[in-house]
Parts: sequence; structure tokens; C-alpha cells
Amino acid sequence: MDKLRIGIIGFGTVGKGVYQILMGDKDTHPILKQIEIANIVVKNIHKKREVNIEKNLLINDPNKLIDDPFIDVIVEVMGGTDIAKDIILKSLRNGKSVVTANKAVMARYGEEIHKVASENGAYILFEAAVCGGIPIIEPLKRSLKSNQIIKMAGIINGTTNFILSKMSTEKAAFKESLELAQKLGYAELDPSADVEGQDAADKISILSELAFGGKIDRNKIDTEGINKIDLKDIEYAEKLGFEIKLLAVSERNKDNNINNSLPLNIWVGPTLIPKSHPLSTIEGVNNAILVEGDPIGEIMLYGPGAGSGPTASSVVSDILSLKALSIKKNISKDRVIDPLLSFNFWRKCHVINSEQIRKKNYLRIICEDTPGVIGKIGYIFGNNDVSIESIIQLDARENEAEIVVITHHVPKGNIDISKNQLNALPEVKFIAAQLNCI
Amino acid sequence: MDKLRIGIIGFGTVGKGVYQILMGDKDTHPILKQIEIANIVVKNIHKKREVNIEKNLLINDPNKLIDDPFIDVIVEVMGGTDIAKDIILKSLRNGKSVVTANKAVMARYGEEIHKVASENGAYILFEAAVCGGIPIIEPLKRSLKSNQIIKMAGIINGTTNFILSKMSTEKAAFKESLELAQKLGYAELDPSADVEGQDAADKISILSELAFGGKIDRNKIDTEGINKIDLKDIEYAEKLGFEIKLLAVSERNKDNNINNSLPLNIWVGPTLIPKSHPLSTIEGVNNAILVEGDPIGEIMLYGPGAGSGPTASSVVSDILSLKALSIKKNISKDRVIDPLLSFNFWRKCHVINSEQIRKKNYLRIICEDTPGVIGKIGYIFGNNDVSIESIIQLDARENEAEIVVITHHVPKGNIDISKNQLNALPEVKFIAAQLNCI
Repeated sequence: MDKLRIGIIGFGTVGKGVYQILMGDKDTHPILKQIEIANIVVKNIHKKREVNIEKNLLINDPNKLIDDPFIDVIVEVMGGTDIAKDIILKSLRNGKSVVTANKAVMARYGEEIHKVASENGAYILFEAAVCGGIPIIEPLKRSLKSNQIIKMAGIINGTTNFILSKMSTEKAAFKESLELAQKLGYAELDPSADVEGQDAADKISILSELAFGGKIDRNKIDTEGINKIDLKDIEYAEKLGFEIKLLAVSERNKDNNINNSLPLNIWVGPTLIPKSHPLSTIEGVNNAILVEGDPIGEIMLYGPGAGSGPTASSVVSDILSLKALSIKKNISKDRVIDPLLSFNFWRKCHVINSEQIRKKNYLRIICEDTPGVIGKIGYIFGNNDVSIESIIQLDARENEAEIVVITHHVPKGNIDISKNQLNALPEVKFIAAQLNCI
Repeated sequence: MDKLRIGIIGFGTVGKGVYQILMGDKDTHPILKQIEIANIVVKNIHKKREVNIEKNLLINDPNKLIDDPFIDVIVEVMGGTDIAKDIILKSLRNGKSVVTANKAVMARYGEEIHKVASENGAYILFEAAVCGGIPIIEPLKRSLKSNQIIKMAGIINGTTNFILSKMSTEKAAFKESLELAQKLGYAELDPSADVEGQDAADKISILSELAFGGKIDRNKIDTEGINKIDLKDIEYAEKLGFEIKLLAVSERNKDNNINNSLPLNIWVGPTLIPKSHPLSTIEGVNNAILVEGDPIGEIMLYGPGAGSGPTASSVVSDILSLKALSIKKNISKDRVIDPLLSFNFWRKCHVINSEQIRKKNYLRIICEDTPGVIGKIGYIFGNNDVSIESIIQLDARENEAEIVVITHHVPKGNIDISKNQLNALPEVKFIAAQLNCI
């Protein structure tokens, strides 16, 4: 059988992992031997590398691959946004299918990229862009396609889950836990994309487009990170039977379509999860995602969210999907495209205004330790239609009390008004924390 | 686009679920509307049914579908073994692809069925045969194909997991829990296939063939059920920090291939699982399966193991996979077959003799409450190269003591010899229980 000829662009952690799977001597399915690496594009051909690699595989001009008619598939694992995007689009325009691990590019330019792929009879596959080794893109495209997806909720950023796990198990402060994550290579030198929740927002945006079928306006996703989480909140959560995790949620709104567009509640934020909930047990750099569908019910996919091996495993599985189609046999603009493996938006969606998202809330309020203050707090919430699950005084010292309020599901707008009125109470010093609950 | 015409054989729980997905008005991907149900084969056309169904869809001769050249796919959801097997084989021989939920047929006649499918350019798909709604067959065929699979371990029988959950949370006896399961429709009137572990053995056999690529001799799988589990063992497991679950395990042996055949440790049995382990949290009729691969590491897939909706979701996803291939466009014996979606054995495997399987063991020994008995027990194990993790006296009354021994990983043969010698000790009354540990 003809081998599939691929060109790899980038030879960092992921690129090396792909090379090791394809050139290794592991006891794997024979189809892996039907993939041939034509060339690997690197910046510096002469750099010393850990991996023992044939020197004549390395080149430094990506165009040599993109313009080579004997290359079937381009594997973009260089990272970054603008140059990577250009390489992806140019490859697709040349009729070559592309496999990428680039979530930033897919979250920002997914619509354009899918369109160009479709126009040129090529595929754009990106299993490695979300949740490392966990198969989630493929199940959404295939196994779960028989369902109406209701909701997805997941821990989809390994860096923040590592930091929160450290804070929870060792009572280590945020700064200290972040520094450890950086030392171990789990966090970047500039960790803002991870700790501020933007990476998780990229991923839930990509997953939402696949699950619900409409273009997501990435910038409308209400996003909060973990950088303001206090050890105090982790301690209180523990006492009340919760773990704090950075959760990404995307949910079909129960209201009907508005102007033929499906309203979605999408948000990313630190969240109290009951210890009996399967997501509360996900530790370290692992990821997990719950998908609720009709009629399947709830399934959970769990595994390593990052790392060379797991991410490369996803990249290679995408390469195999292209090999399986024998795409080289019928390269032409009018070839038949697999409607599950390819992706086309099939409807309109919109992210609802964050004021309208209904959530459960955890609020930690610092106030004077005087009688009647719990009553006044309860009165304000009730007045704003905020139904309360519990109000607990958890700590009191020197005339100061810490009160934790857990609400039922209420619109964010009602919470914001309540917070303004609470801050105006003479007994309330300040609101020290506001987190989500599930 | 041409619709895919399917014939459904059987209209029980699963068949109804498939009908409801395909004929329903859920907000799903438009590809679902490209499937057309030609006919449904039932025993009695005139029987009153819960589902409102067009009367002229129902017929009672399966051959009308199997021999109809305008039917693309046969969906076998009638259950049973012999007749179902004949229908599957005849359909494949007519060049029709088949989707089935029938684990008993696939575990017993998989080799013949795969061969006939392959010879006739047709597909046999069976996602619904294992773990209900959980996508596990497809990930093994596709996403995980880039890996060398090391091990699978799972809770893959919902009935026994429901019974064990009841026994553990409510301290209900086995018999009582089984009766409840029967009342709720989770266990059959003759529950032996489930409670004796044969259903789980069918499933792990199917999964092992896909993961390791060789024919599995189903009868060589060491299989034990949950019918002998005593509440006492559940109580002790709890005290020691474990849950008891019916586990199915399939693992590549670390020894080299023997006569070019890969040795596999495959077994099904009640097992103590540490409470910190993700599999210990799986409750009720849910299933979960851990897959360990190189380089992916460990992933877990969790979800509903049975039920009309989840199982039908898997059946329909298989139908969609066939639709995506546009198989009707090129029905012919020499058409190009998708090498991932189809399955051919690519090597030899063999199940190693159960005496050689290395496991951790839990033994509960009833003996006289005399000094020195723990020493004698320890001596016998040591003498037979059985390394011990702990020996604990857990209960003593009226000159009788209950001693629990947990071993390290040792071959079953060494345990068997030790048990014989323990039974010969005058202080030992009997060995009340032997379970596995992980």
C-alpha cells in the first residue's frame, strides 16, 4: 500500500513526540508503518538535539513542504499564532490536509480555516489542541453525533489544576504553587494565558463549536482565572465538602432559539465542586470533561491534559485518520469528503450576555461581628430574588466575622446588585471572594 | 445527498431507542436526517407497542431485508446468539454492512464474522456491544491506535456494579440486592451471565482483540463472579480503605512473545480497589474503563453501561460512520476499505494459564484465637514465595479470630499451594474468602 507522506513543521516537545511514535520500535498496529516523514522544518538545522535524528530529514523552509506535490499532509506543531495560521491556510489552499495542535489559532481563526479546508477538499484536524491525549474532538465528531448535546463541563487546563491541587493538598499559597509549576515545566515563564483562564476559554470555545455547530464569539466568553484565589477559600471549601477547580462550562440555554440562533451559557471560572462529584477527584496536570447528551446521559473522558507523549498520541491519531481515507488516492477539489471527519457549521449560536448566566455562587463576606448582620445579608439577597442555600459564619476574631453565603442558581446580574447593596451596609467591611459552585 | 437505507432487525429496548433517535425531533446534527429506516423486523406485527410507529414499517421476515438490494445496512438488535449470528453472516455475505449490539455473538464468533465482512468488502460495527453508551470500541480503533496498549482495567458490567453498590452503601445482602436489581430491570430473571462474570468476560475478550490485535480464546479467561461475596468482606474492605468491584483486566505480559504470540493476562473477578483510585468511585449501573498506553499514559472513559438511550446512541453512531463513508456509492467486492473502521487480526495472542497470572490477593481466614497463629500463617506464605503487604486480625469472638491477609503481586499457583497448607494447619478452621486487589 502507498505510504502517506507527511511534512512536520516544528520540532519542540510535540514534534519530537510525533517523531518518536512514527520512528519508534514499539509494538503497535502495522498501519503506523505506513506513514513516512518526508521532512521536518526547524529554525536551526545544526542545533544539537536530544533525539537522535537523521540530519537530512531537517530543513528550514516550510514552503518546500507546502509546495511539494508529493507531500500529502502538513503537521503544524510549531505553536504561535500568526505564522502558524498562514502555514495552515497556505497548506489547505494547496489541497493538503493539515493536522495541528494549535488551540490559539483554532479558537481565533477556526471559521476561516474550516472554510478554506472545505473549499479545497482538504481536512483540518486538531485533536491535540484540546485536552492533550484525551480523545474528545473525535468523540464529538463521531460517537456522540447521534445525540443532542446538552452540556459540557470540564477541567481542561492542566497548569491551573496542578496549582490548585498543590494549594489544596499542601496548603501552599498561589504564588509558591505557581513557581513550583514553572520549575517543573507545567507553567510557562509568562503564565497569564493559563492562570487567567484564557487557555481554558480557547478550548471550551473550540469544543462548543463542534458540539453545538455554530460559530462562537470567543471574546464573549465570561472568563475568570485562579490568580485571586486565597488559601482561606480553599480551606473553607474543604470544610464545606468541596474542592475548588478551574471549570469551563458550555451549556445549551433552556430558552428557545432567538432569531434562529441557539443561545449558549459559556463561562470559565474557579468553581466549588462537591467532593462526591467525579470532577472533584481530578488531580495534578490531568484533565477531564463531562458531556451530557440526549439520549446518552452523562459520560466523562479523563486523561493527561498535556505532555509530549499524550499530545503526540493525538497528533498521530489524526494523521492515521487521514491515512485511513487514502486521501492521496483522490486529491482533487471535487473529491467526496467524509462529513463526520470534516467540519462545517450547521447552524447559528450565540453566547448569552454574562449578566444573564444563571450560576450558583460562593461569597465570602468580611463584616463586623454584631448581632443581626446575617439577617441583614439574608434580607438583601432575598430582596434581589437571590435564593440562598446556606449562610455560615466560619471565623470570628476581634469583632470581625467571616460569613460564607452559598446561593442557588441565579442570574449574575442579581448577584451584582446584591453585592453593591452589601458593600453599602455599615456592618460589611468588604466582599473577600466570589466563586462559582456546581 | 442520497439517504442511507437501513433495515432494523429487532424492536426491543435497543431497537426502540434507535427508532426514537432517527425519527425524533431533537436538535441534532443534520446528518441524522440522512438515514432512512426501510423496515423493522418484529415477531408479531400486530402487537400493541408503547412507541407510536407507522404500521407499514413493520415486517416479520428478516430475509426481505437481507436480500433487498436497496438496503445498505442491517442493524441487528434482536439479541440471542444462533439466529442473530446467521443473520449477521448472511447480511455480510450479501455485501451489506452490519451494526450490532450483540456481545455474546461477537465474543464467540468474532473471528468468523470479521473474516466474512472482510471477504465481502463490508463492515461489522459493534460499539453498542461493550459498555452501552461509552465510546470505547471507536477510540480503540482510532484515537488510541497511535499507542502500544499496555493494559485495560474496567468495571464493564452494570448489573453487578449496581448490586455491589447496594451492598456497600446499604449493607444489604447479595440476595436482597440482586432481587432489587431484578425488580428495577437491571438484572434478568436468570441473572447468571451477569453475576457469574460471563458477560464481563465476553466484553473484555472483545476489547482485548481490538487492543492487542490477536484472536482471544474466550474460554481461557479466568472468570469469577460476585455471587459468593459476603457482607463481611465488604465491611472489612471498607475498614481497610477499599471498595469491592467486579473488575475485568487485560494486560500485556512483560515477558517476550512466545512462538510469535503475545501473552496476555486476562481475568474477571471481584476486586478490592483503593478508595483513592478513580474506578472505586463508579456507582450503580455506570461503567468505566481505564486504558494505559505508551506514550499516552492512562485515560479513563466513564458513562452509562446500559439502557435504551445510551445503547441506541452507540448503535446510531455506528450507522453514521457507515453513512460518512458513502458506502452505497461504491458497493463492490473490491472497494477500498477504511483500515481503521474495519478490523483484521494483525498478530497472534494467547491467554496465559491462570496459575501464572500475578495478582495481589485478599484472603479472609477463620482460625482459633491462639497466640502464634499469625506467625504460622506468615511462615507458610513466606515459604511459598508469597510476599505479604499486611496481616490484620479484624474480629475475635469465642476463641475464634478472623485474620485478613493482603499479599503483594504473586502467581496464582503459589497462592493455591499456600491455601492447601493453611487448610492443613490445626489452628485454621477455613478460608472464608479470596478476592483480588489492585
